[in-house]
Parts: sequence; C-alpha cells; structure tokens
Amino acid sequence: MERHVDSQIEELKKLILTMGGCVEKALDEAIQALISRDTNRFKLVHEIENRINEDHVKVDNQCMAFLAKQGPVARDLRLIISLIKINTDLERMGDQSVNIAHTGKDYLTRTPIKELSDIEQMSTIARRMVKESLDCFVREDAVHAQKILMMDDEVDNLKQKVFKDLLAYIKKNPENADGALDLILIARNLERMGDHATNIAEDVIFVSTGKDVRHGGKYSPQSE
Amino acid sequence: MERHVDSQIEELKKLILTMGGCVEKALDEAIQALISRDTNRFKLVHEIENRINEDHVKVDNQCMAFLAKQGPVARDLRLIISLIKINTDLERMGDQSVNIAHTGKDYLTRTPIKELSDIEQMSTIARRMVKESLDCFVREDAVHAQKILMMDDEVDNLKQKVFKDLLAYIKKNPENADGALDLILIARNLERMGDHATNIAEDVIFVSTGKDVRHGGKYSPQSE
Repeated sequence: MERHVDSQIEELKKLILTMGGCVEKALDEAIQALISRDTNRFKLVHEIENRINEDHVKVDNQCMAFLAKQGPVARDLRLIISLIKINTDLERMGDQSVNIAHTGKDYLTRTPIKELSDIEQMSTIARRMVKESLDCFVREDAVHAQKILMMDDEVDNLKQKVFKDLLAYIKKNPENADGALDLILIARNLERMGDHATNIAEDVIFVSTGKDVRHGGKYSPQSE
Repeated sequence: MERHVDSQIEELKKLILTMGGCVEKALDEAIQALISRDTNRFKLVHEIENRINEDHVKVDNQCMAFLAKQGPVARDLRLIISLIKINTDLERMGDQSVNIAHTGKDYLTRTPIKELSDIEQMSTIARRMVKESLDCFVREDAVHAQKILMMDDEVDNLKQKVFKDLLAYIKKNPENADGALDLILIARNLERMGDHATNIAEDVIFVSTGKDVRHGGKYSPQSE
C-alpha cells in the first residue's frame, strides 16, 4: 500500500529533478553563448536562474511543511534533510551559471584567446554529474553515486590544464591578460559546479545507506 | 519553565559558536601565514579544519536526532533547519581557508608582488561577518543580521580593487603572473567567505522573523 507521505516525497523528487534540468540548461546556455559568441543567449541564463530561485524557495517550503506535519524519522527524515541540502547546492549551481554568464559577457568584448574545448568539456562533465547524481537520488543508487565522486577528478584535472595554458598565454601576451583571467574565473566556476554535484552524490550515499562519506568517511558497496 | 528541548537547542548553539570561532581562527591563520611569510602557520589551518569537519558531522547528527525525537514545529523547526544550513556554510568556509592556505603556500615560493593590506582587510571583514552573524543567530537578532548583508558589499568592492590592481601589475610584470594569479584566487576565496557569512545572516533573519530574504525577498525591521 502506498503511504500518503510517499506521494509527497515523489512530488518533491520530481520538483528537484526539474530544478536539476534547469541547472543543466543554465550551464549549457552560458557555455554555448560563450563558444558561439552570441551575447543574447546569456539573457536566457538569467531567466532560467529566476526559475531555479523560485523552485528553491518552493522546495524549502515543501520540505519544512513535510517535517512539521509528518515528523518523519529514519530514511524519510534523511531523505527530506538531503533534499534541503541538494536544493541549496542546485541553487548555488544556478548562481555559478550566472557568474559564468557575467564573466563570459566581459570576455566577448575582448580579443579571443584560445579555443574553448577544455572549458566545454568541463561543462559537459559537470552537467553529467548533476544529471547522474539526481538520477541516483531518485533511484537511491549509492553504487553509481560513488562513481560520480570520481568524475570530479576529471573536472579538477581539466581546470589545472586550463590554468596552466592560460598562465603560459599571459606571459607571452600580457596585453590580453583580462580575457585570460576571465577564462580562468570561468574554469574556477566550473570546478565549483563539480564540487556541488559531488555534494549531491555524497547526500545520495547518505540517504541510501545512512553512511556519511564526507571528510574521508568510507562507503564500500562490497560490504553492503 | 525551561523546556528540555531548550537545553538541547542551547547546546547546539554553543557548538555552532565554537565552530564559528574555529572558522575565524582558520582564516586568520591562513592570512597571517601569508603576510608574515611563515609557511609553518599554514599547517595549523589544516589542523583547525579537521576540528571543523568533526564538529560539522556532530552538528548534523545532533540536528537529525533532535528532528527524529522531538518532531519540532514552527520556530524550533526553523531553528534546527537553519542550524543544518549554517553548519554547511561553516564547513565550506573551513574549506575556503584551506584553499587559501594551499594557494598561499604556492605564493610564498614566488617573487612577492604587492603589499597585502587589501587582502588582510577582506579577511578582517569576512571574519567579522562570521562572528557577528553567529552572534545574531544566538540572540535571534534579525535587525543586526540585516546590517551584515551590507558588509558583504565592502568585501566585494575590495575584491574588485585587488583584481584591478593585479591585472595592471600582470601587464607590467608578466613574468610574475603566477604569483599575481595566486593572490587573485585568494581574493576570490575571501569573496566566497563573505558570501557564506551572508547566507548565515539570511538564515538568522529567517529563524527570527519567518521571512525568506533570499532572491530579493524583503525584511524591513520597521514593519515588525
């Protein structure tokens, strides 16, 4: 028999998936605007962020109402608390997309510096991390969530590469340092997106297993 | 008559104040190590961060236990949820201090670039923001919390100044671009510290007034 609380939890899960879709879209628009040099597309990032912010308040309110009315314990409680945390991470990912749009807009007023394939790849992985971590959340799949934690290393390595390339560029072309710094800051934003997706994956492991894998806590699927 | 839940809430408030003290200390050590060029002091930042991480898990666990056992509603519920959120912000401020320590250590291997008074001032304001926002949380002082939101503008303006100065420096001294980028990233970390303290101040307003001031929501003390 389906409990009434299950349908409320299902609704919250749907809402958080929609928010995640918006975060992916905001990030993709910001990066595609940068790559296609189409300033107009940056506007869309702000529109999507407004939607994310609306959903952010909505999820928080629904979670508070659920806690007050249902007084959940055990797995249901972990799930609602994780939803509140994931909600915060998604909202901040929306902010990061807007930061990318702001810096990207500045960048497009300057001399183009390098092909942006590394930055595009960082964005692709970060978006995959958001999507997969939320899919894991809905399915409560701690095993795949563990794999997402490792994807963050790819994002970090690409960031290191972008930093190194751009520092070398600045030394040869100091007059274009502003544009290079823009790209460095965008790479830093993308690294932060990966960190937020990592937080989500850690929350999934916590909901599904009750194990706290933050700060070096271990979850080993084999021992389940 | 004091409720049993009140003493539990008092204990959680004390724990979060201790954590806040550690965050202030971690940030101060990282910046003072940088200014005094004393690499050994960076180690202390890592030690303090370990303590912050331990408290982070402890606060989360105590909040979960409180929610499960007491099933709080209204103001008590808002308070516990805000504690969970503030806890996350403090933990991330610990991370930022460690980031500053890492980058600072790199910086000390390079040619010194500029006097660091702007960076020191950013750190002083960020620390004041953490301290005051947590004091407001304990006192449930939404009026002063509102003032903390404005202090973040000072941090942002100083960051803009640091960025501008360092870009001008890089253009004249491209061979020292690595060190300049280190300082830019440290200023960016400090800006993020200000953002986290702002989140805490917003949570204080939410606990005390039930008003959500995120995303342009307004709280006007006059209308209370």
